[in-house]
Amino acid sequence: MADPLNAVLDALDAGRNAALTRLMEILEIPSISTDPAYQGDCARAAEWCAAALKAIGFDASVRPTTGQPMVVGHARLDAGADAPHLLFYGHYDVQPPDPLDQWQTPPFAPCIREDGANGQAVVARGASDDKGQFMTFLEACRAWRDVHGRLPVSVTVLIEGEEECGSPSLTPFLEANRGELKRDFALVCDTGQWDAATPAITTMLRGLCTSEVVITGPSRDLHSGMYGGPAQNPIRVLVQILGALHDEHGAVQIPGFYDDVRLPGSEQRDQWKALEFDAPDFLRRVGLETPAGEAGHSALEQLWSRPTAEFNGIIGGYTGPGTKTVIPSKASAKLTFRLVPNQNPDKIAVGFKAFVDSRLPADCAVEYLGESGSPAVGFDVSAPIFEAAAQALEEEWGKPAVFMGCGGSIPIVESFQSQLGMETLLIGFALDDDQIHSPNEKYSLTSFHKGARSWARVLAKLADHNVL
Amino acid sequence: MADPLNAVLDALDAGRNAALTRLMEILEIPSISTDPAYQGDCARAAEWCAAALKAIGFDASVRPTTGQPMVVGHARLDAGADAPHLLFYGHYDVQPPDPLDQWQTPPFAPCIREDGANGQAVVARGASDDKGQFMTFLEACRAWRDVHGRLPVSVTVLIEGEEECGSPSLTPFLEANRGELKRDFALVCDTGQWDAATPAITTMLRGLCTSEVVITGPSRDLHSGMYGGPAQNPIRVLVQILGALHDEHGAVQIPGFYDDVRLPGSEQRDQWKALEFDAPDFLRRVGLETPAGEAGHSALEQLWSRPTAEFNGIIGGYTGPGTKTVIPSKASAKLTFRLVPNQNPDKIAVGFKAFVDSRLPADCAVEYLGESGSPAVGFDVSAPIFEAAAQALEEEWGKPAVFMGCGGSIPIVESFQSQLGMETLLIGFALDDDQIHSPNEKYSLTSFHKGARSWARVLAKLADHNVL
Repeated sequence: MADPLNAVLDALDAGRNAALTRLMEILEIPSISTDPAYQGDCARAAEWCAAALKAIGFDASVRPTTGQPMVVGHARLDAGADAPHLLFYGHYDVQPPDPLDQWQTPPFAPCIREDGANGQAVVARGASDDKGQFMTFLEACRAWRDVHGRLPVSVTVLIEGEEECGSPSLTPFLEANRGELKRDFALVCDTGQWDAATPAITTMLRGLCTSEVVITGPSRDLHSGMYGGPAQNPIRVLVQILGALHDEHGAVQIPGFYDDVRLPGSEQRDQWKALEFDAPDFLRRVGLETPAGEAGHSALEQLWSRPTAEFNGIIGGYTGPGTKTVIPSKASAKLTFRLVPNQNPDKIAVGFKAFVDSRLPADCAVEYLGESGSPAVGFDVSAPIFEAAAQALEEEWGKPAVFMGCGGSIPIVESFQSQLGMETLLIGFALDDDQIHSPNEKYSLTSFHKGARSWARVLAKLADHNVL
Repeated sequence: MADPLNAVLDALDAGRNAALTRLMEILEIPSISTDPAYQGDCARAAEWCAAALKAIGFDASVRPTTGQPMVVGHARLDAGADAPHLLFYGHYDVQPPDPLDQWQTPPFAPCIREDGANGQAVVARGASDDKGQFMTFLEACRAWRDVHGRLPVSVTVLIEGEEECGSPSLTPFLEANRGELKRDFALVCDTGQWDAATPAITTMLRGLCTSEVVITGPSRDLHSGMYGGPAQNPIRVLVQILGALHDEHGAVQIPGFYDDVRLPGSEQRDQWKALEFDAPDFLRRVGLETPAGEAGHSALEQLWSRPTAEFNGIIGGYTGPGTKTVIPSKASAKLTFRLVPNQNPDKIAVGFKAFVDSRLPADCAVEYLGESGSPAVGFDVSAPIFEAAAQALEEEWGKPAVFMGCGGSIPIVESFQSQLGMETLLIGFALDDDQIHSPNEKYSLTSFHKGARSWARVLAKLADHNVL
């Protein structure tokens, strides 16, 4: 008997056009979750997803929430009751397409265009984030079913409709349906490749700790001539305190800030080093050139494995046109700390407050608003599933998969871990220039096709009990 | 023959009620210069002033400008062509009365109310700033005319109608009429007493240098997760640079910032020390207590004779409710430097720019906007006119007059000096709690009456050629 996988890959090659037609269908539905005007379209997208799952043999249904509905489908019995069982997560909702006048073609009229070195791409809102991506997985499942009548593993699919508006229904939904959704491992297809030729598995996501600090000086705004000198100025206090938050080497000066940082393993660091990441090129695309993070760490480390303190906003006093000779009563700043594995967001928040409190001069008061946090996620890449998935990707792309970090957070991954005790394998085929959340979003046809082939291979590898 | 001054003072005592009636008349006119709806009222106020001057023998006229009209009156020949010749300046325009709902009586229906330890006061917009104050001078002139048929000195009166909206017509008007307005000395009645019992002459006004600094980092706003670490954050750059502007003792760190500061004389400093200024009490009224200016200088010195760097406004990034994980492209701050005599605003601006430029990290750009400046004014109080005026005030109030500084600026004084080469004697009778620019503005009837008596005495002293 021929390798069962080869027949599946052949089927995917033969079915490229039909797969693209299916993708175009879902891309035509303007499922903008944040805008109530598109509620009907979100419901329609959910129905479409449920029908697509049913068409490939899933027991699927649309599940109402207080917001946009969820879609859940099970192909549990396909592979036998004792086969490894995976939960695949995607989302059918999309960002609003504004600004509309910057789209070269209408955002919900998907079309194919040339995409330079990447060949062709499909252009539409949601093409990459996340409709094109989750459809790679569904197409892989379809091919397995079409060729062999069954999947090599048991699969549950969860497709959310609120990812672009903060997933308000997700936590209660996971809680209410944990028996149905807690599986051996989660698969998420919402990340990118290292580059157009190199596949990647995202194995670290930074966590977050947010705070807003408000300094109050005088009880009212004062005339800066009649009071300037003896009167304390809260902007001066704020800039002096925040100006001391980093030293001249970019290191955060909160005592104990780095104490709990778990360093990536030497193998991991060697792999990153071998990537020869072109930091000046990465930064030049946004008008910069020199990495400004902690000295002594590469730009990739600054982005993936080092915590940061970022100022997101600052305001105080008169900010209109011209001059106003005022000493304001208040000044404030919003910060986010990006955290790495093993750091505790609460501990960081406490450390920041102690840092500010200890520098507060006489007559000033300080308030802290909007504190929230979530820890970083870092997977143990020595687990066999990462090795197996990396092998599958290398077999498809002809290059080793990169174990990447990610500077941002993907809340669903943290929810799976903290709520369901389930780890996640993050594989995605997006490219840096996919313009997600921006006009003219696109998804390379290569990403779409080789993505589906990659998932077909990964499913085959995961059928082996030993990798889970 | 009895002392001619005593008869004038007796006439002022006898005419208190009539004088108050005249003040109420001009207070009824809502001469709000900044609001075009009140242009007719400004014209009416100007006509009222011209008529009031004519009624006491001045050759007076309303003089059109491109804005509100000026009033000019001459009583030149009264005292003989070779008598000392003084220019008195006041303004008939007032601030808008908003917020109206905080007035206990309508702002343009002047009325008398009890004013605690100060006796009675007249309440109306403009009662203190500046109608009540300039009327003290006109009442003194009226009494001299009524009793002796002439003033003891030659007087030109200039009453402006745009002081509360930046005096846009003043510079061209001074230029076009310098022959008519340049006199031996200027008198301005727009300042305050040291306290309700102690007269004062203001002999120092701080100057001003304004700047706005704009730092640009990335070419667009960035996601703080996807770029935080390697991407330079312009808020971080701004707070680090501005946080270094003062040292821990409150001293400004711009190289050379204090080089040109002319210290007040030891006599002046001794007088200020003797005032036993209650800095904690002054600061407690605005919710503070501890002087926050340069260590080693008293609060009065910090306010009157030391330069400052004040932050008037700061803005950057996301400042709405909640959190936005952004690294902004730009961040900016507005500053004013208050200057003391002998400091050059241009030199201070250059020093500030060098301070920022030298601290600018890689990949950041800086722009400076809205630069303007005017030097401080400091009079040589050893000139005989100050001694003579101080003596006149002491004779009226029974206490030595304080030679005060002022933390703010009075642009007309600088204009008289730089445009007409004319020094100014700043005498006023306002009290700290007059609520100028605020609801329920008032002017003590004691300020009004003893103010007029004070001017009657000052005019007598200035008749002596030797003091000018």
